[in-house]
Amino acid sequence: MKFDVAITIGLKEGMLDPEARAIRHALSNLGFSTESLATARVFQVSLEAQDRDEAYARAEEMCARLLANPVIHRYRIEVSS
Amino acid sequence: MKFDVAITIGLKEGMLDPEARAIRHALSNLGFSTESLATARVFQVSLEAQDRDEAYARAEEMCARLLANPVIHRYRIEVSS
Repeated sequence: MKFDVAITIGLKEGMLDPEARAIRHALSNLGFSTESLATARVFQVSLEAQDRDEAYARAEEMCARLLANPVIHRYRIEVSS
Repeated sequence: MKFDVAITIGLKEGMLDPEARAIRHALSNLGFSTESLATARVFQVSLEAQDRDEAYARAEEMCARLLANPVIHRYRIEVSS
């Protein structure tokens, strides 16, 4: 069965995010005031799995082994079929 | 009133995504087979606005003026209060 998995990877609370800071600054220069701004990456993966749990577990392993750095990143996995 | 706006910016259909291709290749080398993989960026913005419509419109203008390149990007805006 085919599953669509959205893996969102962001920085852990308290980590410095210089890119977000620069974007916030640029937005402010354009007249957009924001209270906060954080950046994250999304990997939209389509994969074959027996069931939803297997798809979730595979995505989690992908994060652990390649996509995320456990020291600085937190991630969220959403599975839809 | 404060609104949390999630702006997801990805490549338009048909645009080459060399990063996604490299990641898919690396995942495959680790034994993870995927049918497709796409990347996107998320900007999680917190801002003041009168109502949901204003928050949405402000986010849309941010995309048009700074965050997205209309030639290659498509974006999705989700507002929550």
